Formats: sequence, C-alpha cells, structure tokens
Amino acid sequence: MELAQRLDRLGTETAFSVSQAAADWAAQGNRVYPFHLGDIDLPTPPNIVEALDKAIADGLTGYCPAAGIPLLREALAEDIGAKRGMAVGPEQVTVHPGGKPVIGRFIQTLMDPGDEVLYPNPGYPIYESQIEYYGGTARPYRYLPTDAGFAIDLEQLKSMVGPATKAIIYNDLQNPIGAESTEAERRAVADLARRHNLWVLSDEAYFEMRYSGSSHSIAALPGMAERTVILYTFSKKFAMTGWRLGCAVAPRKVSEAFAKLNTNDESCTTHFVQRAGVEAIRGDQSGPRAILAELQARRDATAELLNSMPGVSVAKPNATFYLFPDVTGAMASKGITELPDFATEALHATGVSFCTRLHFGRPQPGEDRSYARFAYSGLPVDDIREGLGRLKAWLEL
Amino acid sequence: MELAQRLDRLGTETAFSVSQAAADWAAQGNRVYPFHLGDIDLPTPPNIVEALDKAIADGLTGYCPAAGIPLLREALAEDIGAKRGMAVGPEQVTVHPGGKPVIGRFIQTLMDPGDEVLYPNPGYPIYESQIEYYGGTARPYRYLPTDAGFAIDLEQLKSMVGPATKAIIYNDLQNPIGAESTEAERRAVADLARRHNLWVLSDEAYFEMRYSGSSHSIAALPGMAERTVILYTFSKKFAMTGWRLGCAVAPRKVSEAFAKLNTNDESCTTHFVQRAGVEAIRGDQSGPRAILAELQARRDATAELLNSMPGVSVAKPNATFYLFPDVTGAMASKGITELPDFATEALHATGVSFCTRLHFGRPQPGEDRSYARFAYSGLPVDDIREGLGRLKAWLEL
Repeated sequence: MELAQRLDRLGTETAFSVSQAAADWAAQGNRVYPFHLGDIDLPTPPNIVEALDKAIADGLTGYCPAAGIPLLREALAEDIGAKRGMAVGPEQVTVHPGGKPVIGRFIQTLMDPGDEVLYPNPGYPIYESQIEYYGGTARPYRYLPTDAGFAIDLEQLKSMVGPATKAIIYNDLQNPIGAESTEAERRAVADLARRHNLWVLSDEAYFEMRYSGSSHSIAALPGMAERTVILYTFSKKFAMTGWRLGCAVAPRKVSEAFAKLNTNDESCTTHFVQRAGVEAIRGDQSGPRAILAELQARRDATAELLNSMPGVSVAKPNATFYLFPDVTGAMASKGITELPDFATEALHATGVSFCTRLHFGRPQPGEDRSYARFAYSGLPVDDIREGLGRLKAWLEL
Repeated sequence: MELAQRLDRLGTETAFSVSQAAADWAAQGNRVYPFHLGDIDLPTPPNIVEALDKAIADGLTGYCPAAGIPLLREALAEDIGAKRGMAVGPEQVTVHPGGKPVIGRFIQTLMDPGDEVLYPNPGYPIYESQIEYYGGTARPYRYLPTDAGFAIDLEQLKSMVGPATKAIIYNDLQNPIGAESTEAERRAVADLARRHNLWVLSDEAYFEMRYSGSSHSIAALPGMAERTVILYTFSKKFAMTGWRLGCAVAPRKVSEAFAKLNTNDESCTTHFVQRAGVEAIRGDQSGPRAILAELQARRDATAELLNSMPGVSVAKPNATFYLFPDVTGAMASKGITELPDFATEALHATGVSFCTRLHFGRPQPGEDRSYARFAYSGLPVDDIREGLGRLKAWLEL
C-alpha cells in the first residue's frame, strides 16, 4: 500500500536536521549555542498572557468564525493598514494558525498546476515545497552581494517571466539573508508584477522586526493591493512563535477562498489565542519594544564577533534576526570544502550550531561563495559572546 | 485574474448558513434555541486551563516538533491504545490543530487523483469536500432506518467497491445521525477493507461521547491497524472545540507523512495547548464525567420532547450529541414539502434552529423520508424544554 504520489513533491525544512544534530551533541554532555533556530527565547509579554486568561474565563473556548473573530480582523486591518499607509478592510483579513499557512493557501488559491511561480533563493524552503506540491513549477530567483548586504538580481528576475508565470513570492526583510529592498528594487518588483499581471505573495513576517529606519510594503504601491497577499505573523514581534497566530491580507475574493480553506482544514484558529492577539495589537506596546531592544543588542554582538573572525564577513542588516556571513575564507583556511562539514566540525569543536545556505534552497548556477545563517534570537548576549568567542578561537587555530 | 480551478471542487460546511439565519433572527430581538450547532456551551474543566497557564509560565511559548510534543504523543498513544484494546506507539501519533485536519491529511497522503473514496452520506460534509478537492471521486454510501436507529446499507457498500476504490471513510458513532455500528456491521466494513486492500479513515470524534455501553474501534480488529487512520479529538470530551487540538493514529509511514504536512502547513500545533492536552488525558477525569452527565440529561429531554411531537419520531442513540428525527409527518401536516422551508418556518414560528439532512451531503436516490438534525450540546435542559415545547405547540396547531 503505497502513499499518494503527490508526497514525492512535498519538501520540508531541512534545518530540522541541524536541530537534531545540536540536540544529539548536547545529549552527550556538550554545551551548545543554538544559532540555528529562528525561534525566540524571550517570554510573551504578560499583558498578552493575561488577555488569554481572561478570554478563557469569559468562555471563549468554543468554535469561532473560520475567517477569524471580527474584533481581531478589525484590529489587524487597522494596524496593518496604518503601518503600511494603505486602506485595509476587515473583510480582507483572514486569521490563520501562524503566518506559514498563508504560503500554502496563496499557492492553492492562485496557482493552477503547470503555472510557474518565482521565489527567492536562498529563501524560506516552504515556498518551493508548496509550489511543487500543488503541481506548479518553482523558479528560483537569486540575490547578488552588495556593499550593504544583498540585492535581488533584477535582470535575472525580469528574464524569468514568461507566459506561464502566475505569481511571484517576494520576501523583503529576508530570511535567511536579512536583506532589505531599496525603494527602487521594491518598485521594480511591483512594476514587473503589474506589467505581467502577476499575483504577489509579500511575506512580511519581519516587517516590524527592525532596529532603525522604517519598513515599506509592496502592497502599498500603486496598483498592487489588488494583486498582493500580505503574510503577517504575531510570532516574531510579540515572541509568540508557539502560539500559532498570523493572518493574510488579500483582495476580498481571495480572502473568501482562504476562509473556505480554513473551514476545510482546521475550522478556525484557537479562539482565545485570537482574543489575546487583539491585546497584542491594541494593548501596551512596551513588551514588543523591549523584545526589539534585546534583539538589537544581540545583533550588534553577533555581527561584531563574526566580523572579527578570520575569513568571515557579514553586513549588519537593520531588520530580521538573521545574519548571513560569507564564510568562504574561513572554510578555506580550515581546509573544508563542503558547508555541511564546516557546520558539523564547528559544532563539535565549539558547540556553535548554525544553518547554512544549503538549508534555504538548491544552490543556483554560478554561486561561488559559501554562506552560513546565524539566528541571534534564541540566546542572550552573554551566550552569544561565549559561543562566538569559541568559534573565533577555533578559526584562529 | 481568476482564482485557481481547484477551488471549484472545494466544498464547505453549509450549516454555517443556518447559523447566519439564527443570528439574523436573534438580531431582530427574537429568542433563538440553537439546536443547529455541534458546539458545546460548557466550560473546559479547570484543571486543563490551569495546566495551560502553567505551560505558559514555564515558557512553552516557542515552536515545538511538527508531530507534536513527545509527552502528548506518549499520553495519547497510551490512552487511545488502552481504550481500544490495541497497541499504539507514540511514533504512530501526530498532533494536529483539531481532529478535522486529519481528514484532509488522510486524503492527501493516501489518495491519488482519480482514486475513488467511499464515504458516509448523510455525513460530515468535509469528507466529500476534501476527496473532490484533491481530485478523487467521492462515492457516498447510505444508511437505512432500523428499529434502533440506522444501519449502513452493507449490500450497497459492497457493490460500490471497484478497482479504483482506494479508501473508505467510516464514522461509527455518526454525525449527523447518531448511529452506532453493531459488532457485525463493524466487522463487515473491516472485511471489505481487508479483502480489497483499502485504507480506512476511522473518524472517532465521538468515541468517548457515550452514555451507556462501550465504544469499539475498527482499528482494533485483526489486520486493520496497518490500514487504518484514527481521527481523535479533544474537542468534545473535554469541551475544547475552540482550543483546536486533536490527533491522528496511523501506521508509521503515514504518520511521518502527516508530520511533514504539518511542517508545511502550520509548523506545529499551539505549544502550550498541547501541554494542557496532557493534563486532559492524564489528570483528574471528573470534568469530562460531568460533561457527559449533563449531555445525557439533555439527550433524554430532547428525545422525549421530539418523540412527543405529532409526525416526529427519533431513536435515542447511546452516543454523540445529535438526534436525527424523521420529520416527514410533521412537514406533511404543515403542508411543507421542502426541508429548508420547514427549518425556516420553524425558526420564525418558535425560535428553534436546526440543521437538516441537506446539510450533510446530497440526497441519494430513493430517499423518501425527511430528517432534521438536533444537536443538544449547546443549550441547557431548561432551554431545551422551553424551545422544544414551542416547537411542539407549533406542530400541534
């Protein structure tokens, strides 16, 4: 009795194997510094937890609407619209158990089998997985290193659009590379989408995870709201990764399809968690401010130490909680040619655990530099200094 | 810009239109008696809520494994196995945001496009929706009225199996009809599955929602565990519908596919809700006992009053919280020929809101009786008596 053939096209997050290797190493009595996890080790702000308790005491333990509770849809519409300078109505908002479900629901709703979807590579691996799972052709576009970090290779991107292209996935404030579009780059992507009548998934998971400057949404550019789905999550800003709460902002007919998918998939997102989400958005904001301040200190420490290591260089992005250092020189000086070997040797020599470029999509032709991804959201500054100090010492051997 | 064609095949729960009609009627200042909702108006037992609070205080607010936390998988394996008299290992258990996601994941994992899947009709409408959404052929099997309630038309069921048949969905302790298989019926379905090498989804959402006797799982019959996926939910037994917590018990390779789908869809089920689920299973059981006692009193009141109405007759099932009365005579005496008209007239005359047979799949050839579904889980005995008293008076007019 074989499983269904569609499963052959389903990808996954291979970074879990890094977690396993780190856990195995820790189980042998070794200290591990977890730079591989895109999770946050800080508590959810207490006012949000109190709102959850009150919601349960108020009896919000039964089913609620598939699209989300009206109060949360209203709060999200107002907040997301205001922060992006665009009008968003509650009917455009659907609530989901996290931001991630929006990826699959975007693909299911807007891509037919045989359609092509452009997606960032390196990038979040679930994009490629969902495109291929639902029978589309996943076409990766690349980034080029710049003085300030990375930029989308716009010439390549433009050359990839053809008659079968249906959609583009755009992840400004990017995981894993931490890159942010310039205004010109964002407009160029929007122009391409408008000119070729493409749908856009704007993954804005890190829109508010920034330490200076301000974020901008491609959805707010002219002619874009009607072709863009915004992925929004509570996970990062409010340290709520395990709560599973996020939403999509989409044109109305797309929202209606998303709600119907919710009815089929999980009925609704946890009722009292949604009520806590209202408090997260409308309540005291000192919690998320403190989270950001802590992450900024971690970013500064991580970037400083990485840049002090021989053969390692990294830009210091203003957003996300990832650094994507070029480790080509460090690998060469250690006589290591493969990224997985570099990660394993570093773990066993120093306890520092990290993902590599290979966990974020298949390398593209012409890639001649090697990169690692350091997430600094999961360990305090003292641990960052200790762990990266050990990594530095190992590289200096 | 059209939506994807697969959405044309996506069904939904049309019972939501009944909720809307009831809400509209209530908004006009009318008293409504909500027999249409398969929800529970009782609070979740306090020990489960306390376990949730403790889990948050203990910092269980970050991501957790896609398959579920080990402690919950162990508790579920032990409890589900013990109650069914079968060996279940934790590696067979995957945790999901409710029981409902197991339907779609069963279909995705075990049915290829073009395969046929047999499913109960009347039955939960998401079965048909998910079979057709993923490109299968949904083939409804029927029930026949008996002295004790309803029985699967086994002759019809056997006649439907052909070379394209891949799976059968079996919902003992059935929604909407409340029917329960005899031992012989359960064995006949199992024999059919074994003989034709079919996968079985055993929807056991109401396995522990029973007032006398004991439940039995088709998965515990010889040769069935390796071809059966059990759908389990916390929603009913613990009054946790809005918490979104359930699981699947499946052969290991199926479990692994389910976990990979979880990774793609929602990463994991809400972390601290899973920890509360451990308390639900292993902690004090006085809460679920009290819920059952209350539901039994409601069942008795509902069945007694329905059977006292002219032209209405219903069996009194030992399980579920649904009654599925034959209302053919009552409709005739009111001069109403269509079920939706009967429901609307009853709502406007008495405030009693209920679903009908039409919300649970397309009628099958030869159906000549009319049925309504009364859920008694959403209102106390006093309200049941008051509402059904009004319905009775209207029918006696």
